[in-house]
Amino acid sequence: MINVDQYLGEKREVINRALKKCQPASGPPAVREAMNYSLKAGGKRLRPILVLATAETFDHGDDDVLDVACALELIHTYSLIHDDLPAMDDSSLRRGKPTCHTVYGEAIALLAGDALLTLAFEVLSRYGLKTKGSDKAIRIIAELSKAAGVNGMIGGQELDLEAEGQNLSLPDIETISAMKTGSLLKASVLCGALAAEAEEKALQQLALYASRVGTAFQIVDDLLDIESSPEELGKPTGADQDRYKSTYPALLGPDKARAKAESLYYAALEALDELDQPTDLLSGLAYKLVYRTK
Amino acid sequence: MINVDQYLGEKREVINRALKKCQPASGPPAVREAMNYSLKAGGKRLRPILVLATAETFDHGDDDVLDVACALELIHTYSLIHDDLPAMDDSSLRRGKPTCHTVYGEAIALLAGDALLTLAFEVLSRYGLKTKGSDKAIRIIAELSKAAGVNGMIGGQELDLEAEGQNLSLPDIETISAMKTGSLLKASVLCGALAAEAEEKALQQLALYASRVGTAFQIVDDLLDIESSPEELGKPTGADQDRYKSTYPALLGPDKARAKAESLYYAALEALDELDQPTDLLSGLAYKLVYRTK
Repeated sequence: MINVDQYLGEKREVINRALKKCQPASGPPAVREAMNYSLKAGGKRLRPILVLATAETFDHGDDDVLDVACALELIHTYSLIHDDLPAMDDSSLRRGKPTCHTVYGEAIALLAGDALLTLAFEVLSRYGLKTKGSDKAIRIIAELSKAAGVNGMIGGQELDLEAEGQNLSLPDIETISAMKTGSLLKASVLCGALAAEAEEKALQQLALYASRVGTAFQIVDDLLDIESSPEELGKPTGADQDRYKSTYPALLGPDKARAKAESLYYAALEALDELDQPTDLLSGLAYKLVYRTK
Repeated sequence: MINVDQYLGEKREVINRALKKCQPASGPPAVREAMNYSLKAGGKRLRPILVLATAETFDHGDDDVLDVACALELIHTYSLIHDDLPAMDDSSLRRGKPTCHTVYGEAIALLAGDALLTLAFEVLSRYGLKTKGSDKAIRIIAELSKAAGVNGMIGGQELDLEAEGQNLSLPDIETISAMKTGSLLKASVLCGALAAEAEEKALQQLALYASRVGTAFQIVDDLLDIESSPEELGKPTGADQDRYKSTYPALLGPDKARAKAESLYYAALEALDELDQPTDLLSGLAYKLVYRTK
């Protein structure tokens, strides 16, 4: 049985070291400082860890896929910086620290987000060149750019903005959550699998696993926003209620929302059952994500 | 002798058609509308035309490289949308039309810029998959992501912001212009050459050509900002002076700045002399860029 907490702690360190290395060593300092500030702000590194865990499931070690893992975290971090901007969610705190634009100003924060997104693809191109694995790298870039685009993360952000103050139906919430949060989580799993040369059938099962875990993750996020204190969570809580956002717990009530997250967890495990590989790592991670307290 | 005006007019149409096709056909509408608005706003299509012209110089037709050409215009357009935002240059007019955020609001404009940047890499990944040319596509993505990043366009934008109200030296201005404008122009030529499988020696000469044309282009831009009316140029003029920006003509005077642009033009032609290919197209374009009136 895998010790998931230990695994997460170890891999977080591996990712942090790799993220340090993949940042540009030269160039004008302000944007680089802002990029580094947001990258260092101590996130859970969930997306890159999903890359590593999926690759490991298919017998590929960290060193083979660290570039891919970093690319996922670079894109996640850019999206947080832009989401926090005054024109968007106007957030002053993130992970317990002042947000990027609060420290560096809006212009530099905007550019730092742009630069992180651009760097993600530079890192993936270097991965392709370095490993002489252009075919793999191109498939990963195709997957990631689609997941981060208008039919994925960015589209979800648009829908989320438009939804403020509206009463949404459950299918609406599911669509927004699948696009805004789910698509990048799914891409993390799939990019790890592509880097590890998993077969088509496995990719399909992993896509199911990741979609289910992604929705469960979002439900738990919404629940934590209601149930935690800002100190516990490291960011302002109650933000969804303040903005009259429709969320899973707002629509279903906390108990049914929690039950839905749990049933998605079991459905995610079912998707893993079809794999020929050992799945204790991916199922352990799914458990951790659904039963987390922050 | 090539009729450059006719060439530009024809290729602009080719690019416009291709840009229409490469936009997402589904997804939430607001960001897609804003992307389309800015893409349709009628730019010169200079960067994608440089891709086509360079590829044609190496015997590759438009169809082989249109995806690459579009990627360049997508990145250029994203950079304009973000540069125009209130936190950056705060511009209300661009190409004679209201800027993206003026029409769609800041949040959607921000997302539209993000989506165009992301789409550029999606288009390049599709190009790699479609042509079974992953190696080429990865080299192009490496070139373009570097040119658009902290040591290229974004870095230039940072330096440009920091330079407002400062007295810059000529080398400072050269650095900013090379990064902010030059790097993407150079990438256009190099990506066209990579798509057409030009050899290393030719790539070096083309890099020289493009750097020189890029600087000349920036000088002419600065001159037009002083000498034209807003009606002629389709955007507010005198903006550099209003912001106390150091520019080539501000530092050298208009006559010496014009002479510098012309000498760079001749230096660009010299770089082309070393190529084994017919260079009338690339030299004709260089002429047009330096002797343009808008």
